[in-house]
Amino acid sequence: MANYPDKVFLNGEIIPADKAKISVFDRGFLFGDGIYEVMLQINETYFFGKEHLNRLSDCLTKINIEFDVNVLPEILKKLLLASNLQHKDCLIYLQITRGIAPRKHAFPLNIEPTILAYALPYILPEINDNPITVTTQKDFRWHRCDIKMTSLLGNVMANDLAIKNGHFETVFYRDGNITEASHSNIFFVKDGIVFTHPADENILNGITRLIVIKICKENNIEVREEAIKLNDISQVDEAFLTGTSTQIAAIKKIDDHEYIKDNKIGPITKKLQQHFLKLKISHTI
Amino acid sequence: MANYPDKVFLNGEIIPADKAKISVFDRGFLFGDGIYEVMLQINETYFFGKEHLNRLSDCLTKINIEFDVNVLPEILKKLLLASNLQHKDCLIYLQITRGIAPRKHAFPLNIEPTILAYALPYILPEINDNPITVTTQKDFRWHRCDIKMTSLLGNVMANDLAIKNGHFETVFYRDGNITEASHSNIFFVKDGIVFTHPADENILNGITRLIVIKICKENNIEVREEAIKLNDISQVDEAFLTGTSTQIAAIKKIDDHEYIKDNKIGPITKKLQQHFLKLKISHTI
Repeated sequence: MANYPDKVFLNGEIIPADKAKISVFDRGFLFGDGIYEVMLQINETYFFGKEHLNRLSDCLTKINIEFDVNVLPEILKKLLLASNLQHKDCLIYLQITRGIAPRKHAFPLNIEPTILAYALPYILPEINDNPITVTTQKDFRWHRCDIKMTSLLGNVMANDLAIKNGHFETVFYRDGNITEASHSNIFFVKDGIVFTHPADENILNGITRLIVIKICKENNIEVREEAIKLNDISQVDEAFLTGTSTQIAAIKKIDDHEYIKDNKIGPITKKLQQHFLKLKISHTI
Repeated sequence: MANYPDKVFLNGEIIPADKAKISVFDRGFLFGDGIYEVMLQINETYFFGKEHLNRLSDCLTKINIEFDVNVLPEILKKLLLASNLQHKDCLIYLQITRGIAPRKHAFPLNIEPTILAYALPYILPEINDNPITVTTQKDFRWHRCDIKMTSLLGNVMANDLAIKNGHFETVFYRDGNITEASHSNIFFVKDGIVFTHPADENILNGITRLIVIKICKENNIEVREEAIKLNDISQVDEAFLTGTSTQIAAIKKIDDHEYIKDNKIGPITKKLQQHFLKLKISHTI
């Protein structure tokens, strides 16, 4: 169950969450004109924090919001202190929007971005050993899924469809290829080889996706950044989702096709989960 | 030049615009999870107001936001009075978002929508007799352009590209067909016949678009809801955009292809502009 944080960092101030308000003329509210990021603190340090902040910076550049992400570590330090989370595992949400201006599609260049950050206590299971079910949907979102923007209505509609039907996620296909899910990436395993869609404009290049690829390479598991076709999902042996809070989630069933019986997670998915756990445990400053 | 209004209606209150603030947990801010509408008051009554409110209602239904638009006329009456605009021509902006909740893609069903409305003095020229130039771009937005949502980053990026290059708009093509522009519809004229993309999920069914189709039908101008191909734009005689504030804007040039020399608007576009002006003049309660 999602909760509100106690404190929020908003434009230079740390304030109680229920007092954190922005102008209705913030372009984040009028146009979904912003970028967001979700990352974790584990063992008192940010889990792949540099990668998260670099992606945030890249996405801001892609939509021409000028903002130096190097100010964020200092902000987060104060936020975690004020939130009593400086030594605790937690989830950090960051959102940068273009700022406040009279409503007009084309954007002014001289406005101050709005900066929102908050943290929530968040203890992840060691291993996500609860296989999930997912449904599929033709990808009706935009064609720049590489940008982690706050214009998320498409993702919201797709995820809501999954949740309200008892699934964990909706997995998209585009031009016959499985691309990603509404807030996670998807991997498949066939004959011991790991497959995932290449990091082009059809998917968000997830940090956990990158970690899994790295784990594969370091452990002599063949990995290919190649899309699996929707028509071929019954021909593969294993499937799993990755995401910052999802970690590595084995897929039991995609629509009617069953990968896992009796919650017995496939061997490659299991191996990757164990390597991922080791990475988390060994992860220090 | 866009301006701020003096007053804003926000969730039951009319307040100064600079005091109008929403929670950072409003799903309109976190997810672009809302619908908007822009309409005009002309001659002391809403210009096709019923059509605008019906479209707002339809779009809210499409994304499962429960809200009765019938409360809006009373709200707008108060807003226009407080804004000193009750007898003046003005532009009205309306935005309904899903409301406030802890951040989670799938949405709760029991929250109160956020209602924003404001009005700005707005005198339209009798006829938009200033031909415009537009550029084209492959449509990279989502595939539910029939929903007038606030997740507008794609439209923002496309419009910004046009404006910063000295054009009025970016016109999209998808699968080889010209669909619409970033905040307007597009029409073409070939051998006296008027063409525009059918009102499917590739375009927003503009109210001015519907008015133009109606004008054609009432005046024996043949009109076809058929897409023009990008490759055929040099084969048509006239082109124009339609929109609530754009009205009917003759297109001088699409990329390198010139339709109009010496600002001489084509005969069918001109005729439609004159009929549209008559409609505005005759328009009363």
